[in-house]
Amino acid sequence: MAFVQIRAAKEGDCGDILRLIRKLAEYEKLSDQVKISEEALRADGFGENPFYHCLVAEILPAPGERQGPSIVGYGLYYFIYSTWKGRNVYLEDVYVMPEYRGQGIGSKIIKKVAEVALDQGCSQFRLAVLEWNKRAIDLYKALGAQDLTQVEGWHAFCFEGEAMRKLGGK
Amino acid sequence: MAFVQIRAAKEGDCGDILRLIRKLAEYEKLSDQVKISEEALRADGFGENPFYHCLVAEILPAPGERQGPSIVGYGLYYFIYSTWKGRNVYLEDVYVMPEYRGQGIGSKIIKKVAEVALDQGCSQFRLAVLEWNKRAIDLYKALGAQDLTQVEGWHAFCFEGEAMRKLGGK
Repeated sequence: MAFVQIRAAKEGDCGDILRLIRKLAEYEKLSDQVKISEEALRADGFGENPFYHCLVAEILPAPGERQGPSIVGYGLYYFIYSTWKGRNVYLEDVYVMPEYRGQGIGSKIIKKVAEVALDQGCSQFRLAVLEWNKRAIDLYKALGAQDLTQVEGWHAFCFEGEAMRKLGGK
Repeated sequence: MAFVQIRAAKEGDCGDILRLIRKLAEYEKLSDQVKISEEALRADGFGENPFYHCLVAEILPAPGERQGPSIVGYGLYYFIYSTWKGRNVYLEDVYVMPEYRGQGIGSKIIKKVAEVALDQGCSQFRLAVLEWNKRAIDLYKALGAQDLTQVEGWHAFCFEGEAMRKLGGK
């Protein structure tokens, strides 16, 4: 039986990560918003001061199987800062290909991010989810997350494109 | 007449910043959540790889006035990463003391953050606001922000305390 390994992404994984980023955006019905390139992912995640960190879920074939290892999921995170709690972690994306769901791969990625964050002294682990994505919401709640939009009323706001350029006087 | 200057925070401002962080949490009715210390703010914002950046609004007295400069507002931000757009900026807090509102100080802080972010190649500027905070929402919308919770249905989720420790197996 194949074995799933969760490991830190390497620069050479960026092509696979971009393939999964596009799949996730498709699932979220927001595909048109993906503007990133493999080159940008390489430069931004693997320089001296990386802007993000990434875990990948890789299927390792059983001995004797011919198929090479392949990346079927990822979790991309970075460190943020709370003026209440200090350094925290934010999971920007977590995704597992549909045919590999139901095996706990998503939970393994999330748990690994929590482990890394605790080692770095973080006390909060934030993420965002679309309100119709019941499968993800059920998972996060089962793992112990709170919906802060529901409980405290937080709304996410964003300046973008022309609005942002105008705001910054450019 | 006094003059308001928006400038990058210095390490010596951390006492003032903490005073305003507490005022903001009080206004948000979430005071009990502030666990941060002045020492942590100094260490986390002013080391070699700072976890956050901060602007302060300082009132400079007119010539002849005796009162020294004093900090009446702040904006605390950091860089995040979108798998759709690349490097972006997140404004964690923006606050102006009640007696100094209505003079455009908050807008000046927000505009300065946008300016810095554009210079760093960011295309998105995110922030979060409590749904009952109509004054802040009206300001962000007037400046061109979109409510992504309303428009796209994003909810903020969080693991914290015992739930986070359990998740990370600690």
